[in-house]
Amino acid sequence: MTLEMHPQRWGDPAHAAPLPASTHALVDAFLGTRDTPASDGATLPEPGLSADLLDSLESLLGAGAVLADDETRRLRTRGKSTPDLLLARAGDLGDAPDVVVRPRTHEEVAAVLGWAVEHHVAVVPFGGGTCVTGGLAAVRDGFAGLVSLDLVRMDRLLDVDQVSMTATFQPGVRGPAAEAMLAEHGLTLSHFPQSFEFASIGGFAATRSSGQSSAGFGRFDEMVVGLRVATPVGELVTGSSPANAAGPDLRQVVLGSEGTLGVITEVTVRVRELAPEKAYEAWAFDSFAAGADAMRHLVQHDLRPTVLRLSDETETMVNLASQSEVGGEGISGALMIVGYETPGALRRRETVTAALGELGAKPLGEERGAAWARGRFHAPYLRDSMLDVGVLVETLETATFWSRRQALYDAVRAALESHLPGALVMCHISHVYETGCSLYFTVAARQGDDPIAQWHAAKSAASDAMVGSGATITHHHAVGTDHRPWLAREIGEVGVAMLRGLKGAVDPTGILNPGVLIP
Amino acid sequence: MTLEMHPQRWGDPAHAAPLPASTHALVDAFLGTRDTPASDGATLPEPGLSADLLDSLESLLGAGAVLADDETRRLRTRGKSTPDLLLARAGDLGDAPDVVVRPRTHEEVAAVLGWAVEHHVAVVPFGGGTCVTGGLAAVRDGFAGLVSLDLVRMDRLLDVDQVSMTATFQPGVRGPAAEAMLAEHGLTLSHFPQSFEFASIGGFAATRSSGQSSAGFGRFDEMVVGLRVATPVGELVTGSSPANAAGPDLRQVVLGSEGTLGVITEVTVRVRELAPEKAYEAWAFDSFAAGADAMRHLVQHDLRPTVLRLSDETETMVNLASQSEVGGEGISGALMIVGYETPGALRRRETVTAALGELGAKPLGEERGAAWARGRFHAPYLRDSMLDVGVLVETLETATFWSRRQALYDAVRAALESHLPGALVMCHISHVYETGCSLYFTVAARQGDDPIAQWHAAKSAASDAMVGSGATITHHHAVGTDHRPWLAREIGEVGVAMLRGLKGAVDPTGILNPGVLIP
Repeated sequence: MTLEMHPQRWGDPAHAAPLPASTHALVDAFLGTRDTPASDGATLPEPGLSADLLDSLESLLGAGAVLADDETRRLRTRGKSTPDLLLARAGDLGDAPDVVVRPRTHEEVAAVLGWAVEHHVAVVPFGGGTCVTGGLAAVRDGFAGLVSLDLVRMDRLLDVDQVSMTATFQPGVRGPAAEAMLAEHGLTLSHFPQSFEFASIGGFAATRSSGQSSAGFGRFDEMVVGLRVATPVGELVTGSSPANAAGPDLRQVVLGSEGTLGVITEVTVRVRELAPEKAYEAWAFDSFAAGADAMRHLVQHDLRPTVLRLSDETETMVNLASQSEVGGEGISGALMIVGYETPGALRRRETVTAALGELGAKPLGEERGAAWARGRFHAPYLRDSMLDVGVLVETLETATFWSRRQALYDAVRAALESHLPGALVMCHISHVYETGCSLYFTVAARQGDDPIAQWHAAKSAASDAMVGSGATITHHHAVGTDHRPWLAREIGEVGVAMLRGLKGAVDPTGILNPGVLIP
Repeated sequence: MTLEMHPQRWGDPAHAAPLPASTHALVDAFLGTRDTPASDGATLPEPGLSADLLDSLESLLGAGAVLADDETRRLRTRGKSTPDLLLARAGDLGDAPDVVVRPRTHEEVAAVLGWAVEHHVAVVPFGGGTCVTGGLAAVRDGFAGLVSLDLVRMDRLLDVDQVSMTATFQPGVRGPAAEAMLAEHGLTLSHFPQSFEFASIGGFAATRSSGQSSAGFGRFDEMVVGLRVATPVGELVTGSSPANAAGPDLRQVVLGSEGTLGVITEVTVRVRELAPEKAYEAWAFDSFAAGADAMRHLVQHDLRPTVLRLSDETETMVNLASQSEVGGEGISGALMIVGYETPGALRRRETVTAALGELGAKPLGEERGAAWARGRFHAPYLRDSMLDVGVLVETLETATFWSRRQALYDAVRAALESHLPGALVMCHISHVYETGCSLYFTVAARQGDDPIAQWHAAKSAASDAMVGSGATITHHHAVGTDHRPWLAREIGEVGVAMLRGLKGAVDPTGILNPGVLIP
C-alpha cells in the first residue's frame, strides 16, 4: 500500500486511526478537549513565475514535469511541524511554491539549477515533505520566483553490490519502497525514523536523519558511503571508499546540508542481510534516571540491542494509559523498549537480558514490545487527532553527553512547563551513543487563541535551554529555518563563516533553499 | 621510557634493533645489500626571519618558547617518509623552518596566528612529526618566513568524564603519554597506529589517523567527539553532542584538515575501560583472496575482533622468514592476525573462532599472534636498518569497497612492479569496514643512483592506479603535499572548490600550512 500525503495532516487520512477512547479520556481529564476542525477553504497565492519562465522550464523537462496546479502546489507547501499543520488547517498556504518541477535524472536536476541560476529563481528541494523545522519554507524575497524541486520521480534503485553490501538509490525513494526493493535482494537498510512511511532517501541524507533502530543500525549519516550531488557550479561525487584520510570528509558536509549546498541525486548506502527473526520486549525501571544509567551501561559495554528506547515517568504513564489493548495496571516508573532486529543482536540477547536484570529492570514481556513495534510509525497520526480536538501536540529534541543528561532534561522541561502551564511534557531517549544520548520531548497543551505564538514562545525557551546547556539544537530533526538562530549560537561565528564559505563556493548566487540552515 | 626523535631516522636509535640475520639474508638474496651510511654533515639554511620579527614573537610567548637553534630546527624539518629520510640522510635540510615556537595554551596559539597574519608568515603546526606525505613541507614562497608551531608543550590531559567516557587532551600529547595518563583513571583510548610512539593526539585528529585496533576501536575520527581550534579569524568549538543533525558536521571538516584550516588546541575523545585481558592469535589461509573474503564475512556479520589484519602471500613469506624466533616452517598462503582487546570482543571470540574455521582458516596459535603484538610498532625501525644497507623501503596505502578489492590490488601492484623491477611488493589489509577495506603496500627495492626519483615514479604510477580504480589516494596517511594532485582528482572540481571556500573563510591570507592538502 502506498500511503498518500495530505496537505493538512501528517499522512493518509485513510490510514489514520481516531484517538483511542482511553487516550481521549486521559487528554480530556488533563487538558480538556473541544472539536477543532480544519478549515475547508484555502486560497493559494497566484503563481509568481512569468509565462516565459514557465515555458523555458517546460522546454527543459517536458510539460508533464512542470506542474502549477493548485493541488500539486498545496502538497508542496511547507512541511509537517505543528505550526505548519496549524497554518494549513487555517487555510494559510502563503508559502506555496510558484511551480513544482519533477526531474527524473541527475542531468535534469542540473538543468533546473542552471535555469534557476540564469533567472535567479529560488529552488527548494522536496523529498518526502516530512520536515518539521521549516526547511521547506525558503525565503523568496529578492528572487524571480520559487520552485519546488520535487524528487518524487527519482524513485529507482540504481545498483546493488552484494559483495560490498551497498545499494545506490535515487533520492526520491521513500522508506517503504526502499525496503521493498532491497527485500527482493534479501537485503534491508533498516532506517526507521518515525517519518519512515513518507520520508525519502535523499531527505534522510540531507537532514542527518536517525531512525528508531539506530542503536543497531546507526544514524543515516553512518549508513551513507557515497553521494552524487548537483550544485550550481557542477557535479560533486563523493565516496571513493568506506572511509579515508583524504582531507575533510565532504560526505559529512553534504549530509546535513538540507538542500543549501546542492541537490543530492544519488545516495549509496550500506545495507545488511534481511534478518529471519526479530524480537521486541519491554522492561520497567524504577525511574527514568535508573533506566538511562542502564542504557549507558549497555552501550558502554558493547551490549547493544538494535532498538533501545526509554520513556520518562510521564510518557510511560501516557503510553500505558493509551495501550489499552495490552493493559498497564500496576506498572509505574520508566518503560524501556528493547528490540533485536539482527542476528548479531540476537546473539547478544541473553547477555543483554542478564545485564538488564542486574541493572534493576523488571521484565514486562514481549507482548508490550511487539505492540510498540506494530505502532512505531503511528504517533504523528495521533497528533492529527489531537489537533482535531483542540490539543496542541508538538515535539522537539536534542542530544548531549551522559554526564549532562539530567541537567539538560531538567532545563528543557522547566522551560516548556513555564511557558505552557498545565501542559503534559513527556520525554524519551531513543538514540544512544557510548558518550551520550538524545532527549526527545513531546508536549501536549490545550490550544490557546494563538497556538502558533503559544508554541513559538515555549519552543524558543526550550531552545535557549538546550544551547545554554551546551547541548545541540537538534539531534535528528535538522535545522531548517526554525533552528537557525540557535545553530549560529551552537557553532559560533567561525562555524557560521565555514558554512558561508561552503555556500559561496557551490551556490554563489544563493538560489538553493535561501533562508534555510545557514545563518 | 620517553623515546627520542632523530632527524635522520624514524625514531630513537637506542630503541632500534639491527636487521635480524634472517631478514638480512632474505633481503640480500632478493635485492642485494650494501652499506649506505647517512651523511654526518648537514647545513641548515640561514633563518630567514628578521630580528624584529623574532623579538615580537618572543614578546608574545617568552624567550624560552621561541627557538632558532640548529638542533631544534633540524628536528622540525619535514616528516618521516622515505624521501624525507633520504634527504635528511644526504644532509639536505633545505625545508627547515626559520624558527620553532612552543606555545602552551590555546591563547598562545591564537596569539601566534595573529602575529603570523599581521606579518604574513607561514605557520606549520607540528605534532609528533611522523607525517609520511609531506605535510610538514609547506611552501614558503611569498611569505616573510616560516614558523614551525611545535605543540610539544601542550601535553596535558585537561579533563576526564568517567560518566560520558570522554577525555580532553591538549594536542601535543603523544600516544604513550595519553595511554599512561588515561591508565591512571582505569581508561584507554587504544588508538594504535604504527606511529603510536611518536605521533600526537592533535596529529591523529588533523590527519584522520587509523590504528591497528580499528576493527574494534574505530578510526581516530570516530573517536573524536569534540575539538577546539584556533583559526586566524577566531576560535571554533565543536562537539555539542555525540552526534546531531545541526547542519554539516564541522568536526568532520576539521578532522583531516592537516593544519590548513586552523590549529587544533583541544581534542575530546571517547575512551573505554582498560581491558583486564587481551589475546592475539594467528591463522593461515590458502590465499590472500580467501583471507579477505573471511574478513569480509566477519565484519558483515557483526563478528569483529579488535585487531584484524591479513598479509598477502609475499608479505606472509617475508614475515615468516623474519620471525625466526617463532619459526615459520611449513606455513604458506596468507597469514591473519586476530586480536581481542576488549571484554566485548573476547565474548565474541568463540563465535569468531568457529567462523574462521568454517571459512577455511588453519589456526596457528597464540604465540605468533603475541609476537605480532610485541612488535606492532617496530616496522619503521626496520626501514632505518634497510636504508643503512642500501635498500629503499617505503609504504603506500589506499582503501576501496570489497567488490573492487582484487582489481585495486592488481592495479597498484602492477604499477609498482613495472616501475621497480625486481622489487618486493607486499600488501596487507589492516582496516576493515562492512563495505570495504584498506590495502597497505610495502615496497622494498634496491636503491638506484637517485632513489628519490626512483620512488616518485613508482609512487605516481601507483597513485594513478588508485584513483583510476575509483579508490582513495589515502586511507590513513593523509594528503600532505605528496597526494595533493590525486586528491584533486578524487574529489573533483566541486570538491576542490568546497575546500577552497572553507580555507578562504577561516584563513583568508593563507598562512596556515600553505601548499599542503588544498589543491
